[in-house]
Amino acid sequence: MSKLRAALAALLLAGMGAWSTAALAQSDPLPSWNDGKAKQAILAFVGKVTQEGGADFVRPEQRIATFDNDGTLWAEQPIYFQVQFAFDEVKRLVAQRPELKGKEPYRSVIARDIKGLTAGGGKGLLQVMAATHAGMTTEDFAGTVGSWLASARHPTKQRPYTEMVYQPQLELLAYLRANGFKTFIVSGGGIEFMRVFAEKAYGIPPEQVVGSTGVVTFRLDANGKPQLFKEAKVEFVDDGPGKPVGINRLIGRRPILAFGNSDGDLQMLQYTAAGQGARLALIVHHTDAEREWAYDRTSPIGKLDKALDEATAKGWTIVDMKMDWKTIFPVGR
Amino acid sequence: MSKLRAALAALLLAGMGAWSTAALAQSDPLPSWNDGKAKQAILAFVGKVTQEGGADFVRPEQRIATFDNDGTLWAEQPIYFQVQFAFDEVKRLVAQRPELKGKEPYRSVIARDIKGLTAGGGKGLLQVMAATHAGMTTEDFAGTVGSWLASARHPTKQRPYTEMVYQPQLELLAYLRANGFKTFIVSGGGIEFMRVFAEKAYGIPPEQVVGSTGVVTFRLDANGKPQLFKEAKVEFVDDGPGKPVGINRLIGRRPILAFGNSDGDLQMLQYTAAGQGARLALIVHHTDAEREWAYDRTSPIGKLDKALDEATAKGWTIVDMKMDWKTIFPVGR
Repeated sequence: MSKLRAALAALLLAGMGAWSTAALAQSDPLPSWNDGKAKQAILAFVGKVTQEGGADFVRPEQRIATFDNDGTLWAEQPIYFQVQFAFDEVKRLVAQRPELKGKEPYRSVIARDIKGLTAGGGKGLLQVMAATHAGMTTEDFAGTVGSWLASARHPTKQRPYTEMVYQPQLELLAYLRANGFKTFIVSGGGIEFMRVFAEKAYGIPPEQVVGSTGVVTFRLDANGKPQLFKEAKVEFVDDGPGKPVGINRLIGRRPILAFGNSDGDLQMLQYTAAGQGARLALIVHHTDAEREWAYDRTSPIGKLDKALDEATAKGWTIVDMKMDWKTIFPVGR
Repeated sequence: MSKLRAALAALLLAGMGAWSTAALAQSDPLPSWNDGKAKQAILAFVGKVTQEGGADFVRPEQRIATFDNDGTLWAEQPIYFQVQFAFDEVKRLVAQRPELKGKEPYRSVIARDIKGLTAGGGKGLLQVMAATHAGMTTEDFAGTVGSWLASARHPTKQRPYTEMVYQPQLELLAYLRANGFKTFIVSGGGIEFMRVFAEKAYGIPPEQVVGSTGVVTFRLDANGKPQLFKEAKVEFVDDGPGKPVGINRLIGRRPILAFGNSDGDLQMLQYTAAGQGARLALIVHHTDAEREWAYDRTSPIGKLDKALDEATAKGWTIVDMKMDWKTIFPVGR
């Protein structure tokens, strides 16, 4: 039976492949991308790595694509959305227990010490998150994030945060997956924060999210039920040189495509670009002050300086948001 | 176009589903399993969680199945295969550099201090691995494991280690995947060791392998190429209470099915069984001294004592190797 099944599966897959190639030839898989160097680089790359028998063919299981989240898949201004979540959580917790008001990290958060919290790749923020959620089960934490996402609105765009995602990137993720890629998030953000919305927002399941982690401990809860509890300690910061380490830890293969937007993505891009065979390294350059935000070398959030120089020097693909993206946010959601 | 594509995809998937259901109805998906309680429990569980509209239906993305490796997917006697690899590596390294002979951990290994190396969930072994491979890139390490697997033979069965896998489990993995499950390894073994053979041996890709890890650092190599280097330090032991922690870290969902064989799997089984909805917890009981090995409560390798009591008390499924498995190892490979 196994040979029959394999043959049938191969036929079905071949049929799907032929049909999807035909469908893609007839219509544009990236309608929110303007024609230009960036779009052409993506189409050319996907075309060559999927062409069986071609010099650059990559087997489907090796088609690993990694995306930063903040500033690459969704916006990050005027403040990382997870920082806003932490602030809102602190307010919620202090309202419940006013005695916390004078204690750290609550005091700093209430004083809005954003600089301190976002310094060092967001480690300060992670510490606030860890401290404010210590003793909570991972499942309760996911519930808290879900409630916040359902009600919170972006301070200037007035949209739910999950609608602050970039339409061109949603198309790119779908296009890559239709071409046999496995898409991953690799972000400095908290892994358990992102896993709550990544599947619905991006079609990326929890097991394909790489992020910063806090210490988690297994023990029985008060009812004798086995649970995982969050501890007040940062374990791993998935930023800068931590990104290739996080990729190795969770994915175990070197990506063939990586997409970032800041210096925190530099090492992921280097690691990806340096592999053997065809590689594509991409950077979103935030150049659109009207529709989104314009910032790079001096921004405290999403600073893009060294990685912009290296992208230019090495010929990585720089996506100019203003020029390359027809639409920024999803319409009519 | 997206509606057309979605409709076509749905048709194709429906076709595949109908065809595979029909195929399964006609033939036994688990031919190496004898009819008995264990096989019936598996078939009943898969049947109910995949029955759309049924009370126990589980959406495909939630169908997470986790398997221990040593003693569950492949054999572990007379010594964990990774320990044998470490021993052989030490011999290889000492042959190249005789001055290492008197130094730790080389000296203990040469003295075959197995008890010390396998104590504490294999942390001693992981330390040997870390020490002997410190300074090597992750990619070079994978090459070393691959070479060893290609030439090493099991000391008594004389088979390559990758043929010491259990045929009934290969069938179970394939059956679960055919029913929309995502299959993961969750083992105390080294993650980078297992990732070398898991895809070929079990059809489990590197990103679905959870294991113990050593510290890895990103830096440029002597040629300026970005690489990940292994350090001489254990980072995380994915054993006992570490298993649910590793599952949370890499998978981010509570499994609905878990399969182990020793006390090191107890917490993974507890964590899995305690989730809401239908769950299946299984244990391989090594009872076959003739075809494999017979051991449990007092074995230094794969000790099964507390987990055997808890399995009995909680009604988990105990797979009696001698009674339940028609074949142990793949035939004619």
